[in-house]
Amino acid sequence: MDNNFDWNQDKLHEECGVFGVYGTTDAAAFTALGLHALQHRGQEAAGIVAFDDEKFRAHKALGLVGTTFGEAAVIERLKGKIAIGHNRYSTSGEPSLRNVQPFYGDMDFGGFAVAHNGNLTNAQHLRKELVKKGCLFQSSGDSEVILHLVAISQEKDISKRIIDAAKQIMGGFALVIATKDSLVGIRDPHGIRPLVLGKIGNAHILASETCALDIIGAEFIRDIEPGEMVTINDDGVESLKPLKKVDPRPCIFEYVYFARPDSIMAGKSVYEVRKNIGAELAKESPVEGADLIVPVPDSGVPSAIGYAQESGLPFELGIIRNHYIGRTFIEPTDQIRHLGVKLKHNANRKFIEGKKVVLVDDSIVRGTTSKKIVEMVRAAGAKEVHMRISSPAIRYSCFYGIDTPTTEELLAHNASIEEIRQYIKADSLEYISIDGLYRALGEEGRNNERPQYEDACFTGDYPVELVDHNNKEK
Amino acid sequence: MDNNFDWNQDKLHEECGVFGVYGTTDAAAFTALGLHALQHRGQEAAGIVAFDDEKFRAHKALGLVGTTFGEAAVIERLKGKIAIGHNRYSTSGEPSLRNVQPFYGDMDFGGFAVAHNGNLTNAQHLRKELVKKGCLFQSSGDSEVILHLVAISQEKDISKRIIDAAKQIMGGFALVIATKDSLVGIRDPHGIRPLVLGKIGNAHILASETCALDIIGAEFIRDIEPGEMVTINDDGVESLKPLKKVDPRPCIFEYVYFARPDSIMAGKSVYEVRKNIGAELAKESPVEGADLIVPVPDSGVPSAIGYAQESGLPFELGIIRNHYIGRTFIEPTDQIRHLGVKLKHNANRKFIEGKKVVLVDDSIVRGTTSKKIVEMVRAAGAKEVHMRISSPAIRYSCFYGIDTPTTEELLAHNASIEEIRQYIKADSLEYISIDGLYRALGEEGRNNERPQYEDACFTGDYPVELVDHNNKEK
Amino acid sequence: MDNNFDWNQDKLHEECGVFGVYGTTDAAAFTALGLHALQHRGQEAAGIVAFDDEKFRAHKALGLVGTTFGEAAVIERLKGKIAIGHNRYSTSGEPSLRNVQPFYGDMDFGGFAVAHNGNLTNAQHLRKELVKKGCLFQSSGDSEVILHLVAISQEKDISKRIIDAAKQIMGGFALVIATKDSLVGIRDPHGIRPLVLGKIGNAHILASETCALDIIGAEFIRDIEPGEMVTINDDGVESLKPLKKVDPRPCIFEYVYFARPDSIMAGKSVYEVRKNIGAELAKESPVEGADLIVPVPDSGVPSAIGYAQESGLPFELGIIRNHYIGRTFIEPTDQIRHLGVKLKHNANRKFIEGKKVVLVDDSIVRGTTSKKIVEMVRAAGAKEVHMRISSPAIRYSCFYGIDTPTTEELLAHNASIEEIRQYIKADSLEYISIDGLYRALGEEGRNNERPQYEDACFTGDYPVELVDHNNKEK
Amino acid sequence: MDNNFDWNQDKLHEECGVFGVYGTTDAAAFTALGLHALQHRGQEAAGIVAFDDEKFRAHKALGLVGTTFGEAAVIERLKGKIAIGHNRYSTSGEPSLRNVQPFYGDMDFGGFAVAHNGNLTNAQHLRKELVKKGCLFQSSGDSEVILHLVAISQEKDISKRIIDAAKQIMGGFALVIATKDSLVGIRDPHGIRPLVLGKIGNAHILASETCALDIIGAEFIRDIEPGEMVTINDDGVESLKPLKKVDPRPCIFEYVYFARPDSIMAGKSVYEVRKNIGAELAKESPVEGADLIVPVPDSGVPSAIGYAQESGLPFELGIIRNHYIGRTFIEPTDQIRHLGVKLKHNANRKFIEGKKVVLVDDSIVRGTTSKKIVEMVRAAGAKEVHMRISSPAIRYSCFYGIDTPTTEELLAHNASIEEIRQYIKADSLEYISIDGLYRALGEEGRNNERPQYEDACFTGDYPVELVDHNNKEK
Repeated sequence: MDNNFDWNQDKLHEECGVFGVYGTTDAAAFTALGLHALQHRGQEAAGIVAFDDEKFRAHKALGLVGTTFGEAAVIERLKGKIAIGHNRYSTSGEPSLRNVQPFYGDMDFGGFAVAHNGNLTNAQHLRKELVKKGCLFQSSGDSEVILHLVAISQEKDISKRIIDAAKQIMGGFALVIATKDSLVGIRDPHGIRPLVLGKIGNAHILASETCALDIIGAEFIRDIEPGEMVTINDDGVESLKPLKKVDPRPCIFEYVYFARPDSIMAGKSVYEVRKNIGAELAKESPVEGADLIVPVPDSGVPSAIGYAQESGLPFELGIIRNHYIGRTFIEPTDQIRHLGVKLKHNANRKFIEGKKVVLVDDSIVRGTTSKKIVEMVRAAGAKEVHMRISSPAIRYSCFYGIDTPTTEELLAHNASIEEIRQYIKADSLEYISIDGLYRALGEEGRNNERPQYEDACFTGDYPVELVDHNNKEK
Repeated sequence: MDNNFDWNQDKLHEECGVFGVYGTTDAAAFTALGLHALQHRGQEAAGIVAFDDEKFRAHKALGLVGTTFGEAAVIERLKGKIAIGHNRYSTSGEPSLRNVQPFYGDMDFGGFAVAHNGNLTNAQHLRKELVKKGCLFQSSGDSEVILHLVAISQEKDISKRIIDAAKQIMGGFALVIATKDSLVGIRDPHGIRPLVLGKIGNAHILASETCALDIIGAEFIRDIEPGEMVTINDDGVESLKPLKKVDPRPCIFEYVYFARPDSIMAGKSVYEVRKNIGAELAKESPVEGADLIVPVPDSGVPSAIGYAQESGLPFELGIIRNHYIGRTFIEPTDQIRHLGVKLKHNANRKFIEGKKVVLVDDSIVRGTTSKKIVEMVRAAGAKEVHMRISSPAIRYSCFYGIDTPTTEELLAHNASIEEIRQYIKADSLEYISIDGLYRALGEEGRNNERPQYEDACFTGDYPVELVDHNNKEK
Repeated sequence: MDNNFDWNQDKLHEECGVFGVYGTTDAAAFTALGLHALQHRGQEAAGIVAFDDEKFRAHKALGLVGTTFGEAAVIERLKGKIAIGHNRYSTSGEPSLRNVQPFYGDMDFGGFAVAHNGNLTNAQHLRKELVKKGCLFQSSGDSEVILHLVAISQEKDISKRIIDAAKQIMGGFALVIATKDSLVGIRDPHGIRPLVLGKIGNAHILASETCALDIIGAEFIRDIEPGEMVTINDDGVESLKPLKKVDPRPCIFEYVYFARPDSIMAGKSVYEVRKNIGAELAKESPVEGADLIVPVPDSGVPSAIGYAQESGLPFELGIIRNHYIGRTFIEPTDQIRHLGVKLKHNANRKFIEGKKVVLVDDSIVRGTTSKKIVEMVRAAGAKEVHMRISSPAIRYSCFYGIDTPTTEELLAHNASIEEIRQYIKADSLEYISIDGLYRALGEEGRNNERPQYEDACFTGDYPVELVDHNNKEK
Repeated sequence: MDNNFDWNQDKLHEECGVFGVYGTTDAAAFTALGLHALQHRGQEAAGIVAFDDEKFRAHKALGLVGTTFGEAAVIERLKGKIAIGHNRYSTSGEPSLRNVQPFYGDMDFGGFAVAHNGNLTNAQHLRKELVKKGCLFQSSGDSEVILHLVAISQEKDISKRIIDAAKQIMGGFALVIATKDSLVGIRDPHGIRPLVLGKIGNAHILASETCALDIIGAEFIRDIEPGEMVTINDDGVESLKPLKKVDPRPCIFEYVYFARPDSIMAGKSVYEVRKNIGAELAKESPVEGADLIVPVPDSGVPSAIGYAQESGLPFELGIIRNHYIGRTFIEPTDQIRHLGVKLKHNANRKFIEGKKVVLVDDSIVRGTTSKKIVEMVRAAGAKEVHMRISSPAIRYSCFYGIDTPTTEELLAHNASIEEIRQYIKADSLEYISIDGLYRALGEEGRNNERPQYEDACFTGDYPVELVDHNNKEK
């Protein structure tokens, strides 16, 4: 309820996963499973709204999908053949149930529920306008503006109202919407955030990633295109292209880090892309006389395999990860902090001792973890520690839906690669080049005039105007 | 979130207590204590909103005030010199946190929080209109319409916006409102629901009853008048009479049953009124040769004392109440239901055996409790059991904020007093007459053209149009 | 698990209620209801153990009986025709589930469960001996010694083992025991703690008070006699008198304060005794020219009625109690403590103002509540406030099962009545005399050589040796 | 409390991890971290007991270590320089807090706490004897007998009492014990269960595995030897060999599956052993013309790397594991069960399609998971699926502390390898031979007369008599 000054916040991270089903009495159960497969996109909270021709029913809770929707009774209550769901990422600040999606509104035409993956760059601007008109906001996040824009739209038809709203919002968005007789999916003009269409029996599915189709054995149909809106009802799938035409620029970070390795995005295997990056990195930045390639688990594994295969060096689990950490142990005592306790990783000493080790990790954000890892590997007896990073240096904050620190807080915004190397105390440090990354994706390189991807975190090239951010700067 | 068909509900009971403070850093603590003193007006849930010149902060929970606000940390978070609070009654249906007041909205002019005691007779009508305009409702109750009416009002000034809203709502209402620089109280034109003004140090208090002033040692200033709006800020208390002038008709049931006996309403001691009713009842319906007067605890005690004093018969605790029942034991097993288990009351056998007993209770709603009580007293050996009721027969449902069953479910709507007597198996049964009740309140009797009180539950004379109810009947 | 030094504690208060059933498939349900009726004897925790010819099953929890046993599923799990239950009083110190009774042990002869009301005066002595023998204690309370004494008894027969144990323990005790084929009840030689026998259908009941029979409609058969052991099985009720013969001395405080007013103890109505005390008090200590008699609710009510009837003065609810307080609001903020907030009681101003008031309360322990009450009544405008107490001054701590402060902490141990009057700021203060109390119980007075009751808290005359206490003094 | 027939249970699995510290004020914090590192040995519950020269204090809870001990306040309460801890594995049956270790007893000589990793083969026999002597058991598990044996021992000296108890128990055990002035560790004569000694600053550590030393940066000193008892106090570490001398036979399954790959056991790197097994498997059972080696994550990874390196085939993450599963989603709906939903694993289709795949897993217990995995890989388009298992077939139940099904429930007990292959529908299936496994461990092979390891689950050769099991068979 602390809304009053909320619009002074620079951004509210909305990194997450969405899922929707139309056409089966198991809609809510499928949605729970789909959200579970998308759990890596958001672990703070999850919600499902289902409609059974009579009532919209919701269940939302902080915590993992398996915990919230693991009981049969919860799913059974969410009756009906339409359901949508949402996973929310844990961001800084006190989490609150009222920010958990999907959002729902009773409208003139009936109930309306929406789940939003992404971040809007003009949400606060729109919110101010809407408050002036008398709209009452219940959440502090970006996504509720969509609900109000639909509610006050002068259009009669639900589809037109949604388009009316979608035309006003800017940024990265993939929306999944449930109305009383349809499931609607819509992707921002650049296609920054992903959305795919699937099918199982007579039911259609919308999901952030293909791994959420796999979990229920649904067939992958196609990616929703940038700027496309699909409406699914008893008559099948209708496609519209109501938004302004611009060059597609899907988020490159989904490939580098965010998506699950078993997902296929725009026809590309995420795992394969990561292996390719590793191979490019081995070509760009080999380590002479290295003994073994060690991934920083789990996210560095695919690139390390690629690096090892390209370089012909053995791939070894030189660092073991404790998967039980979860979100706990948040308040270790002071002395434990001093000890530099290794809650998450441990060096596999026997394979490290006396070796020249190449560590492969996916990114360096603030650098604290990398520093600890290098220190741990060296303490385990490594002769040399060479760090290779399977993304270019992150120099700019993301405003389209990935939870990064502000630009000022990013280590690489303020430090040269040599300075970072010194900070993390590695014997050498290399990042994949931006062109190398594009090559791993099958492009010839980044074409500065027509880049194929949204890569602002590496390049500072923001394809959608940062309205709220710029207003605040002024 | 099951709003979609909510407006088909006939009414949503909004029996409750409100409290507000302006002018002390202990505003939230005082509000918690005030709500505790008003706990009898609503035990389902409680909430407080406080404002500290920077932020509005809320805390709400299902459960008793003492449980929700008993910890110092909760109160300490609710900083500021303005606070309002609300107790909610347990009504049928699944309770939900989103219906717990106060309601809050970020508005063009800043934050706005409102707590409402009462029930609106045209809420569903207004809600439909507001939804058509694009207002998004979050709760299923009546009170949220007030928030939206203020939010979309075309008036510039906050006070005028509140008046604009207050003019549109109908029914029984006592509102306590917190804005960023004032505490506002407003009472419906007939003054159906109560509201009083108090003072402690430099701080002003608004509360449903005087017992909520007593708990913090605040001085009682005066009742807020029917149709009056008071605005309290650093300049003191400003009074307006913006609503249409009608004859005052405060709810008579507050005296009979709802208010706490130690409260003073419109200058009358509630305890004294109840004793007077008992005395009138003794005059109207004495019991020849009775041995003792036994109250049905706890609500029958004051009238029983009055009856005993008037009749000169001994007052005895012939029925003992178990206060530990709380809201639990909700699912006794079948066999226990059969046994007619006495979870709440037990006869004090030694004082009942062989006696001609006069039982005094405050009302008969569905008759099931009275039937059990008479049976229990008889089983304990009473020679005769005579029931005396300190209210007239309840024949009509309340639409202004008291939680009664629908008219059709009321025992006295369908049965004569003799039929009721046979049903509860008493040797005799008498209710206070409506004129007797008025006499106990210091009137000469109910003047049919200008009744002094809102007494629709006894008479069916509804002073405010039942818009939603009538729409539904049509 | 902090047992190590627990035996240094002077005493562990074991004020509580017990209940047992033999002979109905509803044994656990009856026990839950019986414990609910005995809730006034202990509100901290409750437990039930039931046996169904195959397994002993237990359910225990902190909290009220209605909360713990209100759900049908909990009761349904506790199958069988034998059940015993226990209510535990909230004492100082952190409550812990492992101290919640009944206690259970797998023994050579099968399962054994015991519920104990009372306090043993040699428990720590016995515990030390048992630990020396290798017995492992799980709780920090007195009652577990009984379990170990039975477990290590050299007797073959279960009854003889129980007698073996009962002969070694000293103090006040009423035990209810479930074995695989019987329900056993046993009362200490002096009969300090109460225990009654009832019957419903073919089932027999044991309970601390008759009100626990009433709640399920069971017939009262008789009190278990001091030193008696009854064994109930399919053959009926067998009675033994295995303990040493001494003069009966039931606890007088049960009549004054602890028992429920609707219970009958040793043929006497508790309510009637309390009224008699009030009448004796009116004779011993009348107040000239008093206007009204006001009970301190709820415990002062019966004596106030007796006082009013004897004195011919009107009985009025001059103080209103808020029953919602429960066990919460435990941490009010500092400023609230300063205000002397009236969380529990409020003066009924209209009936107090300008009057000479006689307050009747049941006891003064530390004096802080009485001080507040007098101050509140005076602040409400009373001309004079006269306090009358329906028990003699409590000058000595209880070691037999009533939770009193240590002797040193008792106000009356260190202060004269006049000093107490000055402390609580009453215009006059009188206690019932010890002889007056005996007269109210139907005796001629306390005969110093053969007192009829255990009245140590008033007289310091402890009929059972305080072994542990005396050891500690040494 | 359902103990009564508990001794009819064949065995109570006691697979778990233990940890102990002597000599630092951070004893409890170190123990929490150590238990976290040992979380893979038991996820159901965790407990710590600490002693601070005055009191033993315990904290135990169901759930993960990070959740139970993540808050600073919990650790701060567990004061003192001695602490022991225990992780408990989730076994079938309702988990209960009273079975959570460490167990504690107040004894004649002071407090005594014990944590036990392993399973006793004569616990039920001993329990019956102890119950006959009057010992009261509180848990249903094996380990409490140790406590009672110490409690009733006739020896004076604590060490001798522990030895007295240790001589009576049979099976696999590694005990960590806290007394008021020492930390004691003891390992069964065969050394079936592991225990290591470490040092950090002046403090000594006992732990099930070396990874629990690494997490706090403690130095590894040595393995505790089979049959050895170490006593750690202010004078340092004293070693005794009080138990009967037998040939050491540490559990081979720790290397194959149970221990963490980064642990060093008896001088051997667990990760290296697993890689060696993979290499031996590649030699024993190569797959002609295979395209890639795919581990079943996570446990199959090290052997798959070894297999890939030996065979020269590419190692690929062909199956992706969802780490968010935790212990939830326990009640999927029926239809979801039908769908064969892939909650935990998903095929990485792009790398599987059209390929001849070698899957490497660590074991097959009941075969249901393997069947699903093969089916999933085939459904993802694999041309052929060859399964290689890095342990011999598990044909016999473990009675020494690993949670396996009963012998009858083991797939390989009743089926030939060819039958298993048909059941899981693989194109080929091979297990490592028992001699191959011994070779991977650096032996020449299993010498039938003097095997170096306890390998009963593969061979049925039980080195310690199965007293309770045999009694039950009779």
